[in-house]
Amino acid sequence: MTNPERKSWSQDYSEWFHKVIAEVPIYDTRYPVKGTGVWMPFGYKIRREVLRIIRDELEKTGHEEVLFPLLIPDYLLSKESEHIRNFEDEVYWVTHGGKTPLEVKLALRPTSETAMYPMFKLWINAYSDLPLRIFQIVNVFRYETKATRPMIRVREVSTFKEAHTAHATREEAEEQERIGVEVYSKIFERLKIPFLRTIRPDWDKFPGAERSVAFDTVMPDGRVLQIGTVHFLGQGFARAFDIKYMKSDGNYEYVWQTCYGISERAIAALISVHGDDHGLVLPSEVAPVQVVVIPIVYKGREEEVLKRCKEVSEILERSGLRVSVDDRKDITPGNKYYTWEMKGTPVRIEIGPRDIDSNTAVLVRRDTLKKTPVNMEMLVEEVRKLLDHIDEELAKRSKEWMSSKVRGAETIDQAKDELDTRGGIVELNWCGKTNCGEELEKTIDARILGVPFDEHDIENPPSGAKCAGCGGAANKKIRVARSY
Amino acid sequence: MTNPERKSWSQDYSEWFHKVIAEVPIYDTRYPVKGTGVWMPFGYKIRREVLRIIRDELEKTGHEEVLFPLLIPDYLLSKESEHIRNFEDEVYWVTHGGKTPLEVKLALRPTSETAMYPMFKLWINAYSDLPLRIFQIVNVFRYETKATRPMIRVREVSTFKEAHTAHATREEAEEQERIGVEVYSKIFERLKIPFLRTIRPDWDKFPGAERSVAFDTVMPDGRVLQIGTVHFLGQGFARAFDIKYMKSDGNYEYVWQTCYGISERAIAALISVHGDDHGLVLPSEVAPVQVVVIPIVYKGREEEVLKRCKEVSEILERSGLRVSVDDRKDITPGNKYYTWEMKGTPVRIEIGPRDIDSNTAVLVRRDTLKKTPVNMEMLVEEVRKLLDHIDEELAKRSKEWMSSKVRGAETIDQAKDELDTRGGIVELNWCGKTNCGEELEKTIDARILGVPFDEHDIENPPSGAKCAGCGGAANKKIRVARSY
Repeated sequence: MTNPERKSWSQDYSEWFHKVIAEVPIYDTRYPVKGTGVWMPFGYKIRREVLRIIRDELEKTGHEEVLFPLLIPDYLLSKESEHIRNFEDEVYWVTHGGKTPLEVKLALRPTSETAMYPMFKLWINAYSDLPLRIFQIVNVFRYETKATRPMIRVREVSTFKEAHTAHATREEAEEQERIGVEVYSKIFERLKIPFLRTIRPDWDKFPGAERSVAFDTVMPDGRVLQIGTVHFLGQGFARAFDIKYMKSDGNYEYVWQTCYGISERAIAALISVHGDDHGLVLPSEVAPVQVVVIPIVYKGREEEVLKRCKEVSEILERSGLRVSVDDRKDITPGNKYYTWEMKGTPVRIEIGPRDIDSNTAVLVRRDTLKKTPVNMEMLVEEVRKLLDHIDEELAKRSKEWMSSKVRGAETIDQAKDELDTRGGIVELNWCGKTNCGEELEKTIDARILGVPFDEHDIENPPSGAKCAGCGGAANKKIRVARSY
Repeated sequence: MTNPERKSWSQDYSEWFHKVIAEVPIYDTRYPVKGTGVWMPFGYKIRREVLRIIRDELEKTGHEEVLFPLLIPDYLLSKESEHIRNFEDEVYWVTHGGKTPLEVKLALRPTSETAMYPMFKLWINAYSDLPLRIFQIVNVFRYETKATRPMIRVREVSTFKEAHTAHATREEAEEQERIGVEVYSKIFERLKIPFLRTIRPDWDKFPGAERSVAFDTVMPDGRVLQIGTVHFLGQGFARAFDIKYMKSDGNYEYVWQTCYGISERAIAALISVHGDDHGLVLPSEVAPVQVVVIPIVYKGREEEVLKRCKEVSEILERSGLRVSVDDRKDITPGNKYYTWEMKGTPVRIEIGPRDIDSNTAVLVRRDTLKKTPVNMEMLVEEVRKLLDHIDEELAKRSKEWMSSKVRGAETIDQAKDELDTRGGIVELNWCGKTNCGEELEKTIDARILGVPFDEHDIENPPSGAKCAGCGGAANKKIRVARSY
């Protein structure tokens, strides 16, 4: 069998995505509040594995988990002026408790800076209280007026991991920003999701931040999805919330802060980046079931085959794998293949009477659907090797696919043409001026993602190069894309 | 050293509780929205272990985890008439998105029946869709007008585990009710929290339920805390939400349902039931740190002692324990003891130069603070034995303490006197009539918890016995208590 095709996946990605999340099922979009959805058991298990990775990388780097209340009083939400200006049109307000109007309106958190930082003020007094590094995983709310899209543009973000840190000096906070970027890079690497790291232009920063670094990936339809952001906040929020510590000389200094967020968009990307026309394809670390064992029963030898399947399952489980035996009656093996391929299970093991006779089993890998017979003695070793190999191939395939979607262009027309025909990300020479950038966005009908975070990612324009927008002297490369 | 006292614990429980949650810290009550609080890192870790136990017991019995949206449209919340009658005064309403008034008011879920059951209608069609058993762990909201109390009476219940099931027949749903009760019993047993299981009187059932079984425990001040409930819903919600399945004869039947809930009150009980004047005392299964190793350093031998402490820590960690070495400088061992006793760490290991010379270590158990020297060769074994022993003793101590708080009484005056002087739970003969029960609650100024769930828990009144309330013929025992 050849590799499964990725036709519906790439040609009608939106329909493909809706079908997969409904059929696995991952997320039920029929809940009667626009822009929300229900995490179904299998989807919830994927989410759990993804969150395990996120927690692992954050805890390894000294972040501690906490949990803040949902509701933010209006007077706190509006303390940092840029922040509230940006959020005031998209905040849900609780105005009544029972029939009683509330004295203070309460916002459903759109993000938790303004909930957390009044507490930072209470917790931070001395130098020894720093650095402070916490995170929480919660739901946040945005009253999106644009068309919503499951897991990607929602009104209830059900899965928002937000980390918040405070430091004694600018240098330490900038170092933390770098650590945040590294933590996210590791998370996406474990998910095999390719990404580019880009510094957002000033007009597209997180409201209240000095600098925002974003992680972008390219979806099957060529549109870009922002899957994570790391913000250097400077002292803006510290001033607004009066968060100070006493220095050794007895004077007080405002703390320096960073925050970084990641949401279920990471899961939407995980689903989208690896999938094919048969459904999900999951890297082994996040697959709720890593190996499924399917009995190929023949009359008279049913019990024997089932017994062998269970033995195989137990052996694999003892070696630490997540295994399931699909022993449903009255369902053909073909139907079972369909189910488990849809669910993205990395390895399928087929066992029939002939396999028992020859002391073998057949391994089928999800990414290519290639079959390999293995000797029972080598089973655990071969399954583990195959899982590793699939993971490597998924990482490679998705990386190559994304690389093919990033190209340079000389002119606005070229850029527009690229985005119209092939999507992805286009790199252009740019002068760096805000009004030129905003003009450029309008002309190309695209978003300027910004300049590369990684200095060596792309070469700067040669001297004498011209800005693709205004024709002035270009001093940097910018990335441009149609985005979600 | 003798057992640590439980003076402040029992004599000023409320102050004790506030001090412990602030000092450990577990939960910061200073968040500026009444009836809410912040889970601090150590408290969050306890919460994580407790939730691990809850998930474990639910998954073992076939419950699958899901996640529903927070917001419930008003027309759904009001579909089951008894349900809405009970909740309408205590629901928070979202009325605006940005500056735009919403067309449909959205409730912050007070519990999720009315969010889940419209989806049950979509998911359940055939007999093969049953039984359905799901749960979620979320925050829920009640606009409490009474005085709030951290983790016990809150406006945002930050940690609500709610399970919901649907079945083909009354018998299967009643069997599930029994399983729910067993699951909760196991959870509380693992937490070493003693409990009585009581069927709530009709006027105190969950709104919309046919029967509510409650788990109650007694707090250090003698007041009763409801820590979990299991509800048999019958077909009431199924009718309201039109949840039907097709039977083999082609006719449709409404499903039979149960639901059961447990909240952070379980954690408040865990803290309260086991504590003493030194702070928390945690059963090993939920202790974020099970063993703390404290170096007793003497000049000249600091490095040697620290090295031994780290070796000991590694050996214990390899055996699967959660271990921490407190190697903070400039802090006396006495201060370290104070910290870790406050945090309830079950076992402390002290290691100084003399211990190295004699190849021993000193184990100190948190519950009694008794010290025992052990030989290094026996360390892992002895620590494990000690942890088991402490857990048994905690279970025994808390059970005995609760038993001492449950007593019989003949008359209203006796009951009142018992509750006034010693608190706890009083058992009375009762006629079973609602108006008599409600009158009784007023006279004693207490809550009727209800009749025992366990038939053999207490004997029924002998024939000829009189109701303590109205003097009529008594046919059952009821439990009465002052409750949170």
